[in-house]
Amino acid sequence: MNKKHIAIIGATGYTGSELVRILYHHPQVAIDLITSENHHGKLFSDVHPQFKGIVDMVLQPMEALKDYKPDLVFLGLPHGASMKFVKKYYDAGFKIIDLSGDFRLDNAETYTQWYQMEHIYPEGMDKAVFGLPEFFKKEIKNAQLVANPGCFPTGAILAIAPLLKAGMVNIDRLIIDSKTGVTGAGAKAKDVTHFPNVNDDFKPYGLKTHRHTIEMQYILGMIAETDCTVQFTPHLLPVDRGILSTIYLFPEKKDINSEKMKAIYLNSYKNAPFVRVIDELPALKKVRGSNICDVMATYDDRTNTIIAVSAIDNLVKGAAGQAVQNMNIMLDFEEDTGLGMLPLMP
Amino acid sequence: MNKKHIAIIGATGYTGSELVRILYHHPQVAIDLITSENHHGKLFSDVHPQFKGIVDMVLQPMEALKDYKPDLVFLGLPHGASMKFVKKYYDAGFKIIDLSGDFRLDNAETYTQWYQMEHIYPEGMDKAVFGLPEFFKKEIKNAQLVANPGCFPTGAILAIAPLLKAGMVNIDRLIIDSKTGVTGAGAKAKDVTHFPNVNDDFKPYGLKTHRHTIEMQYILGMIAETDCTVQFTPHLLPVDRGILSTIYLFPEKKDINSEKMKAIYLNSYKNAPFVRVIDELPALKKVRGSNICDVMATYDDRTNTIIAVSAIDNLVKGAAGQAVQNMNIMLDFEEDTGLGMLPLMP
Amino acid sequence: MNKKHIAIIGATGYTGSELVRILYHHPQVAIDLITSENHHGKLFSDVHPQFKGIVDMVLQPMEALKDYKPDLVFLGLPHGASMKFVKKYYDAGFKIIDLSGDFRLDNAETYTQWYQMEHIYPEGMDKAVFGLPEFFKKEIKNAQLVANPGCFPTGAILAIAPLLKAGMVNIDRLIIDSKTGVTGAGAKAKDVTHFPNVNDDFKPYGLKTHRHTIEMQYILGMIAETDCTVQFTPHLLPVDRGILSTIYLFPEKKDINSEKMKAIYLNSYKNAPFVRVIDELPALKKVRGSNICDVMATYDDRTNTIIAVSAIDNLVKGAAGQAVQNMNIMLDFEEDTGLGMLPLMP
Amino acid sequence: MNKKHIAIIGATGYTGSELVRILYHHPQVAIDLITSENHHGKLFSDVHPQFKGIVDMVLQPMEALKDYKPDLVFLGLPHGASMKFVKKYYDAGFKIIDLSGDFRLDNAETYTQWYQMEHIYPEGMDKAVFGLPEFFKKEIKNAQLVANPGCFPTGAILAIAPLLKAGMVNIDRLIIDSKTGVTGAGAKAKDVTHFPNVNDDFKPYGLKTHRHTIEMQYILGMIAETDCTVQFTPHLLPVDRGILSTIYLFPEKKDINSEKMKAIYLNSYKNAPFVRVIDELPALKKVRGSNICDVMATYDDRTNTIIAVSAIDNLVKGAAGQAVQNMNIMLDFEEDTGLGMLPLMP
Repeated sequence: MNKKHIAIIGATGYTGSELVRILYHHPQVAIDLITSENHHGKLFSDVHPQFKGIVDMVLQPMEALKDYKPDLVFLGLPHGASMKFVKKYYDAGFKIIDLSGDFRLDNAETYTQWYQMEHIYPEGMDKAVFGLPEFFKKEIKNAQLVANPGCFPTGAILAIAPLLKAGMVNIDRLIIDSKTGVTGAGAKAKDVTHFPNVNDDFKPYGLKTHRHTIEMQYILGMIAETDCTVQFTPHLLPVDRGILSTIYLFPEKKDINSEKMKAIYLNSYKNAPFVRVIDELPALKKVRGSNICDVMATYDDRTNTIIAVSAIDNLVKGAAGQAVQNMNIMLDFEEDTGLGMLPLMP
Repeated sequence: MNKKHIAIIGATGYTGSELVRILYHHPQVAIDLITSENHHGKLFSDVHPQFKGIVDMVLQPMEALKDYKPDLVFLGLPHGASMKFVKKYYDAGFKIIDLSGDFRLDNAETYTQWYQMEHIYPEGMDKAVFGLPEFFKKEIKNAQLVANPGCFPTGAILAIAPLLKAGMVNIDRLIIDSKTGVTGAGAKAKDVTHFPNVNDDFKPYGLKTHRHTIEMQYILGMIAETDCTVQFTPHLLPVDRGILSTIYLFPEKKDINSEKMKAIYLNSYKNAPFVRVIDELPALKKVRGSNICDVMATYDDRTNTIIAVSAIDNLVKGAAGQAVQNMNIMLDFEEDTGLGMLPLMP
Repeated sequence: MNKKHIAIIGATGYTGSELVRILYHHPQVAIDLITSENHHGKLFSDVHPQFKGIVDMVLQPMEALKDYKPDLVFLGLPHGASMKFVKKYYDAGFKIIDLSGDFRLDNAETYTQWYQMEHIYPEGMDKAVFGLPEFFKKEIKNAQLVANPGCFPTGAILAIAPLLKAGMVNIDRLIIDSKTGVTGAGAKAKDVTHFPNVNDDFKPYGLKTHRHTIEMQYILGMIAETDCTVQFTPHLLPVDRGILSTIYLFPEKKDINSEKMKAIYLNSYKNAPFVRVIDELPALKKVRGSNICDVMATYDDRTNTIIAVSAIDNLVKGAAGQAVQNMNIMLDFEEDTGLGMLPLMP
Repeated sequence: MNKKHIAIIGATGYTGSELVRILYHHPQVAIDLITSENHHGKLFSDVHPQFKGIVDMVLQPMEALKDYKPDLVFLGLPHGASMKFVKKYYDAGFKIIDLSGDFRLDNAETYTQWYQMEHIYPEGMDKAVFGLPEFFKKEIKNAQLVANPGCFPTGAILAIAPLLKAGMVNIDRLIIDSKTGVTGAGAKAKDVTHFPNVNDDFKPYGLKTHRHTIEMQYILGMIAETDCTVQFTPHLLPVDRGILSTIYLFPEKKDINSEKMKAIYLNSYKNAPFVRVIDELPALKKVRGSNICDVMATYDDRTNTIIAVSAIDNLVKGAAGQAVQNMNIMLDFEEDTGLGMLPLMP
């Protein structure tokens, strides 16, 4: 079988190591190139020692890409840095999956407002497709540029969108209380990720200003074809991986109940291989290491409130796994190829 | 100085060991008696080995109380079991601080509805004072029976009550998303507290049915002299101690802002030695081991929503520390006597 | 391709869920039967909810085995219980991999001394082959009954045996200081595994008496064809998975050095797909979720002491993964079939 | 009562916050000055937010010391930096407790060999007294300069010294396998302390070269008046606080047993308020937050080996608590004044 060829640009973060962990067993692609600006010349396994003896490829500088003709390029660069390369690679005709936040919104002004930065390639925002296959599979299939969703938006949108689209919930108050593992803050050591500042502790952060707020609001509005208002509060958990979102929604319709919501979920996700509609409460470890998103919703008639809960592994369905899912669609493979990793529990 | 004499009934749980940790240094009381139904005959330090060589008192059976004349009795028994002994000790004239949930509500019917159990001593519910000194200090001073507040209600009420009382917030939707350490589940090993079922994991539990829901709703209503509706969702954190509550409130008044809310808090708590109104976001470790409750609130004008956050140590301000605070008031000591433990961080 | 058929007897512990996690993707076997004495009638995914929608087989009682003709049976029962069934299944002609400690020693007397229990099937001890493929591959290939090694012995033996066999180290003092994750204590909640009794804590246990001591000593002696004396101290880590052993050995020969020891390791393990001889210090996460055993050794000439370190995932190379490795050998597959799981890090 | 006045030089690390946590309640001293080179001008509680509203002193630059006449100065500076200031303050006549490693050894050559750095004040090494009150109380009483012991040496020496002094153990092989919490690495974020690099992981570090090796060897030799050889291996635990050392010793005498060793410990420590000789196995949480060192030893006659275990809180008995204990002795207070903090467990 002829394998497709891919390149990973910027592979020293967690996204990079997760892409390699997943693609290593993918039967239809070969990794031709892995780059790193800070570590080129070293082995991939020097930076990610768990791969010692398994993936010992030499890390290349980014310019090396010009000597390769990959069928698809993953970009694992920080936002701001990413847009420059997306522009360049797009013009060069590469299929691109960008894991940064640079192409998830639809206009440069909103971007600047939430990212405190000019956007240098607003045309790219028009070309980019939001890489959430459960709602944009057709668009992803035909896209040259896919903006891989943010980790928080992935879990939250999958829990809210079906209900919002069905007109079940009030659009003015979508309250998303999310809790994330520390890998969401990246692989680089910072004060806030210093072990004694996290272990046995718990805290909210980024109230009212987190960039994923606007991403959720924009994409939910697009899916449900309506304006809506998202309140989003992230919290930092003393765990490595995973995002659990507890979502409070207020019914728009009178005759809502938990069974009806389950039916809506099941119908929405009948062709979605990675969304698991469950009856029990989601938990991080039930999806850890896998590309699964668990969702459930329940209606409290005492208070007339819906509580929806979703859980994902932020590095897999929230980043690298979803990127591979998008790649599968873009390269005409089965959507779930190479993504059969079962949850690691305990 | 003549010390007052106290007894601790049911001291093998975490409440028991925390009461001893705090009272050991209290300058005005002496512990005369510690009882345990399952471990009497053993030393207190056999059950709580951190006290070896420090508190080696022999655990007594509960009947031993009749040979003592303590000035005050702490009851650390499970709900259901507690009410029987409260009745008996009340009639015997003891001052009682009951750490169970048996006397926090005001009528037996509601109790039965949320606790799935008959209440055998409804008159006690009338006699009991809710032991939240920040709002009921005068009543506590004159009480013979104090119902020590639940851990979740303590933190949540302290963040909500001042705003609710000031008429700032809509009474129909008080959304309380709380996250607790595992000690909240008690000292006894269970499946849900098995280390591999908690570590590196995170999950909600008790949706729509947790007993502290009604306690919050009843007490908030009493403080603010209004009906109100509480939505409460607890979650289990992979940490030992602490409860952080993220609370979503909807403004009733037009001209709300963060400064106004801070002023309301400061005014409410100007005589409260353990509520700390802070500008930064609360975090569990900033209060761990201490009797402090950190609170802050912020207003999001984009969404017209208030986010209030509080943090306590569930075993201290959420249980044993607050009980000692109540004891100080009941026995005419300074409210903060013996409660100067500073937070253990990191 | 004709798949081989296997049965898993006693699948509600961690060994059970790990066997299924691994075998689910194994290309050459099918799981026909999963049994549980306490949970038959339930789904496998009721007990291990991470498998919901993935492996929903109904758990059977043990007697169900008589209706199947599996090519191989995994026994995941506690020691003591296991031997009865091993006897029965052995006589019935099944190929068996027993994950308990019942058939790892060579005589009933020693068993009784360390396990405080009579052995009811001493003949089985003669028939059983110790399932450490790195040293007993040929015997495993021809065995009907394989005793899967203990978790501590696996890591410790792989680090010591090559040096001991080469006559490099004194046989009188093999000091093994091991640290294990909590899953080593099993899936059942106990006081010692209660989250607040483990989290942020660390402690030794079982000094001088742990059963794996004699297993290490016996197997090392067999491999190196010499008597030897093992001092073994296990400790409980606040982590889920993994065993790291720090081993102190005293040189028998004058001209020892770190390079020489590395060469001995490399030579010993040149055909061993899962032992990774590394230069850096082993760490639990570098092998988590994988069947890899990392080993290294260094010589301290200041003190004339060898320090060897090994790390494994106790549930994989220390249990289920090694069992599958043994199965592969017994059923004439490639030794590493289905065992390509990469380490999950972070 | 006239309080003594103290200054803390370099208070933004964990040593600084622990000194303040302890001294805040000390009845006989007042903190006049807290300095920080990187944060002067800020409040102490800006750097250590748990003290907000409790200790809000302004951090001063180091030069500010000249305007104060403290009775005693704590130096919480890194080694290398510390010696310059020790020299200066010594000449100025201050009583000094230096928490760095600069004055724990006895000659500059050895210092350079292990610390890879010249010593600029070798005379200070002669003047300094090693601040382990259990063995050097008299010398501490009369010292102007006390070198506060390293965290690993404190726990290890307390477990070994009595046995070594009694001639019970072979001097050629003292094997110390230690496991420490992450606070031992300091308050500054580094790659090795990045939460995902520590959580659910475990690893050794600094094999053969850790500086505390020579400190242990030198001090043990001084106490027991004999040469000896220490093998020391530290490991990093996913916990905040605490050091547990498992120590393997080989008997010099024939008639050794566990009871005899306990008697030696009890006799050695009969006047030591913080060493607790216990029968059960030590564990980190049993001493967390306190100044207690738990020790026990057992003899394995099967292998003719002694296993001794000790546990301390590295920030308390291993640093700030021991420093206050030394201060009490130097300022003629009771040795345990202000050090009654009970262990925080769980």
